[in-house]
Amino acid sequence: MVVATERVRRPSDFSVPRRPRQGVSCLLCGGREAETPPELLAYRDPPDAPPNSEGWRVRVVPNKFPALRVEGALDRRGQGLYDLMNGVGADEMLVESPDHHAKLADLAPAAVEDVLRAFRDRLVELKRDTRLRAALLFKRHAADTPGSLGHPHAQLLATPIVPREVLEEFDHARAYYDYRERCLFCDILRQELEEGTRLVVQSEHVLALAPFAARFPFETWLFPRRHAAGFEHASETEQRDLAGVLRAVLRRLDRAIGDPSFTMVVHSAPFLEAESPSYHWHVEITPLLPHADHAWSGGLPLNAVPPEDAARFLRDTPE
Amino acid sequence: MVVATERVRRPSDFSVPRRPRQGVSCLLCGGREAETPPELLAYRDPPDAPPNSEGWRVRVVPNKFPALRVEGALDRRGQGLYDLMNGVGADEMLVESPDHHAKLADLAPAAVEDVLRAFRDRLVELKRDTRLRAALLFKRHAADTPGSLGHPHAQLLATPIVPREVLEEFDHARAYYDYRERCLFCDILRQELEEGTRLVVQSEHVLALAPFAARFPFETWLFPRRHAAGFEHASETEQRDLAGVLRAVLRRLDRAIGDPSFTMVVHSAPFLEAESPSYHWHVEITPLLPHADHAWSGGLPLNAVPPEDAARFLRDTPE
Repeated sequence: MVVATERVRRPSDFSVPRRPRQGVSCLLCGGREAETPPELLAYRDPPDAPPNSEGWRVRVVPNKFPALRVEGALDRRGQGLYDLMNGVGADEMLVESPDHHAKLADLAPAAVEDVLRAFRDRLVELKRDTRLRAALLFKRHAADTPGSLGHPHAQLLATPIVPREVLEEFDHARAYYDYRERCLFCDILRQELEEGTRLVVQSEHVLALAPFAARFPFETWLFPRRHAAGFEHASETEQRDLAGVLRAVLRRLDRAIGDPSFTMVVHSAPFLEAESPSYHWHVEITPLLPHADHAWSGGLPLNAVPPEDAARFLRDTPE
Repeated sequence: MVVATERVRRPSDFSVPRRPRQGVSCLLCGGREAETPPELLAYRDPPDAPPNSEGWRVRVVPNKFPALRVEGALDRRGQGLYDLMNGVGADEMLVESPDHHAKLADLAPAAVEDVLRAFRDRLVELKRDTRLRAALLFKRHAADTPGSLGHPHAQLLATPIVPREVLEEFDHARAYYDYRERCLFCDILRQELEEGTRLVVQSEHVLALAPFAARFPFETWLFPRRHAAGFEHASETEQRDLAGVLRAVLRRLDRAIGDPSFTMVVHSAPFLEAESPSYHWHVEITPLLPHADHAWSGGLPLNAVPPEDAARFLRDTPE
């Protein structure tokens, strides 16, 4: 990463104006359960209320327009140089609230915990399908997105191959481990705790920090202090703690730079590597800021906000 | 890449409304030469007109707010786990026209050729600096971008390391060569000419095609038919032909989907690999479409427009 020190921006340069919200209903809203494919999971009060009824807190449904489908064999084949396989896999929507205008940052701590628990429950379930190799949970938040894409939700993809960037990150961490016999991420956490300059929020079990040589302004990563490669190994306590830190980070970003668009991705080990000593699950939050330079530059991102400045600014921002 | 066949979009779904242009002047405009750092290169009529005067066709100036600077030693050093080095390198603006409202697609063929020639001339010059390892030329076009970022230009970065994604592409092609002793890209061109379904524009020396398993709708790659790893090896004739094909592709994209935002990147071999038998320089154009799914998904892009459909649509669109 290049920190463009000669064009460093003040964090407040990125502030986005807030816009009023209007009453909208989409098929992911509470009360329209019949319009989605039948649910795969939901948390309700009472827990034994009938499926696909109102009254849920978090709900997972198959994507109505899936990129991948659960039926069928993989059928790997060639076409000249190229490799093809059927789009076997799972494509699910994790709906974070029945309220269209709720957003993750504004949910109660217990509701954020429900979202993380729902991912963990689905992950455990999807791992039983031996055709699948990895699961990704990612969300993209942007104020005023129309329709069901604007309903607070994350997308869960489970794939019959390990996606390229997941594999690259995994291989990179394994190369470090092969050389030092230590987890790269555990070493990063140790150094970040010592230096302190890039820490954003700390709790008993979880650390949020601006990564060294951050690619984008206000990029923030959340790590469990305890080593574990697969997110399915996160304990109840760690999930609760992660929910609290995630909520704190999102609320500070909201306060600091005004409801930014962002992507959030849970990085968890490929299914067959869930016990790996070299990988460490974590969550990456990347604000997508209108004045930031997101142009492709060959994997050499140009970031005008040094992570130490972003971290200090977020530490000094109240929730 | 996942082609989401169940949510395939018609190409016309992506059409962007055209907006009127207003008179704007910025420091990259003709007549304001004194406001930029002194030029590094310009083509003028007559060629011996004084530097930094009006009357240029294409002009290269140092970035006024550079991410990298040409002075200084590299000074590689560690900070615990992390690696640091000084931001040595070149950060230049290749200004494609003195007219703020010109755009690459609308320039005369000879003017597009000037742009490519200017890059080649700078590349040859920058390679003389033995601290540098690679040069990237990229541009991002978006209608109505304010200020000098909205002036038609490309950015040229020359770096003391090979950027990560450039190295990954190079290594991938080398692995193929080590196995088959043939250039991956030459093999791709042969197969694409045989299949024909993904070809967009052909000329004597250059092919434009929608890549197999394209990551984004209307992604288009331009290749010289003749093998060469470094763009500095492009002959005058190849540059002229590339200019014609590039212009044809951009004009068809404009007609087909209405002045889309796009990024364009020239992929050229790292400086020390300019003679490599395994790499093949090329140009990648990636439209950035408002309805396309650019959310991160672990390096597993979801593209709702199969490349064969995009290629057919562009072939059927007049310039």
